[in-house]
Amino acid sequence: MSLPAFVTAARCANMMHMNDAIALQDTYPEDFAHCFGCGRYNENGHQIKTYAKGDHTVTRHIPAPYYTGAGDFAYGGIIASLIDCHSAASAAIFWLGLGGKSVGEVLAPRFVTARLEVDYLTPTPLGLVELVGRPEEIGDRKVIVTTDLRAEGITTARGRAVLVKIPD
Amino acid sequence: MSLPAFVTAARCANMMHMNDAIALQDTYPEDFAHCFGCGRYNENGHQIKTYAKGDHTVTRHIPAPYYTGAGDFAYGGIIASLIDCHSAASAAIFWLGLGGKSVGEVLAPRFVTARLEVDYLTPTPLGLVELVGRPEEIGDRKVIVTTDLRAEGITTARGRAVLVKIPD
Repeated sequence: MSLPAFVTAARCANMMHMNDAIALQDTYPEDFAHCFGCGRYNENGHQIKTYAKGDHTVTRHIPAPYYTGAGDFAYGGIIASLIDCHSAASAAIFWLGLGGKSVGEVLAPRFVTARLEVDYLTPTPLGLVELVGRPEEIGDRKVIVTTDLRAEGITTARGRAVLVKIPD
Repeated sequence: MSLPAFVTAARCANMMHMNDAIALQDTYPEDFAHCFGCGRYNENGHQIKTYAKGDHTVTRHIPAPYYTGAGDFAYGGIIASLIDCHSAASAAIFWLGLGGKSVGEVLAPRFVTARLEVDYLTPTPLGLVELVGRPEEIGDRKVIVTTDLRAEGITTARGRAVLVKIPD
């Protein structure tokens, strides 16, 4: 499957309408399913699940209660970790979606993070968080994902990740 | 203790020469010592220790073996987490140092991350990592820290964090 060399966010929204029942992480080959953040075989890890929904992606997760920072708030590292792995999954979903494919229909490419930016807007209560990812740019080898992380109805952090596709 | 409003990196290097035997995290009051990344009372956490050394800071850490990403490499979230907590400690050390104080001499202020940037240069082998922090800017309420993260003698990731001081 080949993609146009570069597609900007405005075009992405028109080209994609995705509603997948399968989490991207559940399609990872066994060799790639041991990541602490998103591998289904990492018993100690977060095992996050990321789904396509319309023109964006969604990850919902409840961190273990010991991921504290100050007081009852989540520590910065768990926020960055969730945004990192959510962005890698989102990149694969957007890449598939742009090619007209759904999660599970074909083997998804794996993306790794080249650059991660996180703005901590306000402390994040330690409980259910929802990450909503959108494509800023989709290229054949590079995808940029922006993420809003919400807790208790408030956007508490924003992320931007530049991801590159692992060669086949 | 008051500081000049703004000091840039070039002046920082001239003003500070620190060699502290006490880790900044070991001076945290009990109420602030439960952070997953750096709290000495978080039994599940990383419990990192950051020391002043000359004009920079050093954190050495061996992540638990389940912090895998792809293959035998560290996952992106642990890299971001270490840089985050190392930067928060470094900010307090630089703030103290600029005021002519050593770690443990006076109660250090606590800094929280407002923005975190990580560039993943090459995969990080999962083993001993060394983080070296330097001040880009030191203000009374805001400190910017840059970090080189090294593994097996190679700089595998670079960080930049903007940290703000929690009001007294």
